[in-house]
Amino acid sequence: MVDVPELVAQAREGRPRAVARLISLVEGASPQLREVMAALAPLTGGAYVVGLTGSPGVGKSTSTSALVSAYRRAGRRVGVLAVDPSSPFSGGALLGDRVRMADHASDPGVYIRSMATRGHLGGLAWAAPQAIRVLDAAGCDVILVETVGVGQSEVEIASQADTSVVLLAPGMGDGIQAAKAGILEIGDVYVVNKADRDGADATARELGHMLGLGEARAPGDWRPPIVKTVAARGEGTDEVVEALEKHRAWMDEHGELTARRARRAAREVETIAVTALRERIADLRGDVRLEALAARVAAGALDPYAAADDLVAGVTGPEQAPRHGA
Amino acid sequence: MVDVPELVAQAREGRPRAVARLISLVEGASPQLREVMAALAPLTGGAYVVGLTGSPGVGKSTSTSALVSAYRRAGRRVGVLAVDPSSPFSGGALLGDRVRMADHASDPGVYIRSMATRGHLGGLAWAAPQAIRVLDAAGCDVILVETVGVGQSEVEIASQADTSVVLLAPGMGDGIQAAKAGILEIGDVYVVNKADRDGADATARELGHMLGLGEARAPGDWRPPIVKTVAARGEGTDEVVEALEKHRAWMDEHGELTARRARRAAREVETIAVTALRERIADLRGDVRLEALAARVAAGALDPYAAADDLVAGVTGPEQAPRHGA
Repeated sequence: MVDVPELVAQAREGRPRAVARLISLVEGASPQLREVMAALAPLTGGAYVVGLTGSPGVGKSTSTSALVSAYRRAGRRVGVLAVDPSSPFSGGALLGDRVRMADHASDPGVYIRSMATRGHLGGLAWAAPQAIRVLDAAGCDVILVETVGVGQSEVEIASQADTSVVLLAPGMGDGIQAAKAGILEIGDVYVVNKADRDGADATARELGHMLGLGEARAPGDWRPPIVKTVAARGEGTDEVVEALEKHRAWMDEHGELTARRARRAAREVETIAVTALRERIADLRGDVRLEALAARVAAGALDPYAAADDLVAGVTGPEQAPRHGA
Repeated sequence: MVDVPELVAQAREGRPRAVARLISLVEGASPQLREVMAALAPLTGGAYVVGLTGSPGVGKSTSTSALVSAYRRAGRRVGVLAVDPSSPFSGGALLGDRVRMADHASDPGVYIRSMATRGHLGGLAWAAPQAIRVLDAAGCDVILVETVGVGQSEVEIASQADTSVVLLAPGMGDGIQAAKAGILEIGDVYVVNKADRDGADATARELGHMLGLGEARAPGDWRPPIVKTVAARGEGTDEVVEALEKHRAWMDEHGELTARRARRAAREVETIAVTALRERIADLRGDVRLEALAARVAAGALDPYAAADDLVAGVTGPEQAPRHGA
């Protein structure tokens, strides 16, 4: 058994191993998960959580790394949660991409953690907030959450940050593609990276048009800025940080930070509850109930709703028949 | 109330309105959902379900459209389920992209349906299999499921098809990006589209290398083919169909089709059961329980697991405390 209070104390002192250990306990749904969570809860709320999302190839890792450098120059402790798909094929490839991050590997003021998108019980929606909690409680001033894929789960995670940054690049991941990926409307700050390439101005213009930035807004509404960067050379990074700080100040002023965090907590609690219920269903795999039901469904002998009724009854008792479509 | 048996009979005659109505009933979790599902179950299993996935911009819509044409030439009835992110910003943009599909709009042998990725109770994982069921029962010989985003949910849907096609294009969405998106290992057939562009051969080579196609495999193992296409001109489409048919024959020969469909049904049933349980939790929003819990969690006064316990108890009764991390 781990000495949780000791581990938490070490994490708050900035010891990376303690942070790593806590995240592992949390990710792995260890027997001490609840003890860890109870210990962390009163220590959270200090970190500013920034989500970074965008199509593959727009330069998210590079931008994240540039932001880490900028925040470090300002003396902030920084946590990075890189939500990566884990794939037998990509392991090596990803390492190359993480090389820039290696600049920060020896900096005790930076904690970097990669998280696999799959193989997890409740998926990203469950695991990411828990890891953020650990980094928050460990005393990070800023937590950058970088999601690699562009999909429903990834957009959801990015949109649960205090501030969401959407990255685009000229040519690839241009406006229409970003819109297709559904990420356009979640941005509080937009970054057109690789701005030294042809088409950067056009991409920024098109984006401004799609966002309706030219249209009138109610006074006090947040108008998302579009910042052009060349992250590989650190150009524009200070402007991104400035935009983030402005958004944070705007949220403070309008009570939006509290509101967002309450929404995030609601989703977190709901996801944990659903995961707990899902686990009970998974336990039914043990007694081959699901397997037998699935074979009948696949053969057309049973419809999936009737089969699901059986599973739900196994979890909650038959008196709690589902009201789905009733 | 809808006359479900009549609607199902009309759908099987190929009347697009009846199919649309059934999908709407299914998507909207209508009160007649269960009746619809029970009516459809014995009619399913005839369709060959092909998933198409790939990074934004590789030409998925164009490739899907070319496949529709090819299957139509062979006299097959085709269903298309395009899983699109619904976004207030993208509505117009997407239409442009769907123009090619309009070629098929007046063809009674083709049924095209778009599905939004968000706003759904149980998300894509819940809704997509139900829509596939309707298309299957309506007598489609082939169902093409095209996912727009590249993320956890989208990859999961694509990987649940009978055969999964992964699309790439030279330059954008090259090997490393596809690997990052986690889609590389799910393909049964790989397509390098836009093969008239520079770098197509390099992309195909790199892909073959990443997939380890040069390595020895056990006899009888499926070796995913890499097909080069220029979908906009219909080039290579026949070769894709041929590859699909080969994969289907291989699955038949090795019992893989039955196995995959049983796995798909298991996941479908599990998702419906979890969704039913999730709905009960959502009902608790009504009595502001979740909201009050979330505010305490956001303030650090309560940890999210303790809060989730409360929710779960509200759904299943307190005697069924969650065993999460217990």
